Amino acid sequence: MDYYALPIANLIEQLSKLPGIGRKTAQRLAFYILEMDTIEVEKLANAITNAKKKIHYCSICCNLTDTDPCHICKDDRRDKSIICVVEGAKDVIAMEKTREYKGLYHVLQGTISPMDNRGPNEIKVKELLNRVYEGEVEEVILATNPTVEGEATALYIAKLLKPLGVKTTRIAHGIPVGGDLEYFDEVTLSKAMENRREL
Amino acid sequence: MDYYALPIANLIEQLSKLPGIGRKTAQRLAFYILEMDTIEVEKLANAITNAKKKIHYCSICCNLTDTDPCHICKDDRRDKSIICVVEGAKDVIAMEKTREYKGLYHVLQGTISPMDNRGPNEIKVKELLNRVYEGEVEEVILATNPTVEGEATALYIAKLLKPLGVKTTRIAHGIPVGGDLEYFDEVTLSKAMENRREL
Repeated sequence: MDYYALPIANLIEQLSKLPGIGRKTAQRLAFYILEMDTIEVEKLANAITNAKKKIHYCSICCNLTDTDPCHICKDDRRDKSIICVVEGAKDVIAMEKTREYKGLYHVLQGTISPMDNRGPNEIKVKELLNRVYEGEVEEVILATNPTVEGEATALYIAKLLKPLGVKTTRIAHGIPVGGDLEYFDEVTLSKAMENRREL
Repeated sequence: MDYYALPIANLIEQLSKLPGIGRKTAQRLAFYILEMDTIEVEKLANAITNAKKKIHYCSICCNLTDTDPCHICKDDRRDKSIICVVEGAKDVIAMEKTREYKGLYHVLQGTISPMDNRGPNEIKVKELLNRVYEGEVEEVILATNPTVEGEATALYIAKLLKPLGVKTTRIAHGIPVGGDLEYFDEVTLSKAMENRREL
């Protein structure tokens, strides 16, 4: 590393901590940043500190937001009787892009994963139960990912919700649109067969 | 873009200006940054501003440096009679990693490229000539890239150096070590044949 001047070496080190950015890419980015206009560099650095400073969890749905409650929770046009439970803020974005879902969200900020020492207390399950207790909710859609951890988390939450008398549903598993049958694993295929519908 | 809170949207926009980082990667990086420790985020933002603030061109070789002259120019153990001319700071790093070359560098900061409106005045040719004028230099190695612009730049500089009576050499073209003959183009192959040496 002594080939680089210290501020460059430091920049490369910090950049290479980001996911998917190895040493080589970090080096390329660092030299690119050094060639950028000072104003653009300031903008980039400020965007990073600002986002971290201003973004926090919504006190209702635990989504990432700069207002409280977040723009979805405080939107009067949204259906307050449905809550869609997702693992992370990225899933909310993906869901919103469909422009189909008009209910509220609950962002767990992770899954239950004993392997990684994450139990129910490490994710926002209690906050979800409190929202359901308050009574307005009629349906909870469990939209965690179809992974081992996502399934376990969905089953765990479903069990907790049952005594509260709220309708609990799970998003469908099957073949994605545009997918090719031969390329999907047998579990996906059998789920797709199992969940078949009459046309 | 209105799916994101403003500070997140802004962060994604700034990140996606970096080379090789598209919208999707920028989104992934943004959410990762939001989950990082505040201290780590500060470190990243500071590394960016600091590098831009402290790094400038060496007044002798035009390499990127935080001292002046740079650590190579002020190193007494380096052979001051040889200058290796490269296109950019990255090339200095690549050359230094070989641990073979013990002379000085001259970083052009680009190539002559009429297509991009870059003439000899846009790159550090004058600075190189001044260094050669001063007399200590015995050999100038032209190590610009073997591209059309790199070759043109090398030929242009060689022509300017000729009247100064300094030895001017060009790095060898040929098959890279570990390369496979059948995968190289005919120009590379004929250069490799042309530059063959007796064993």
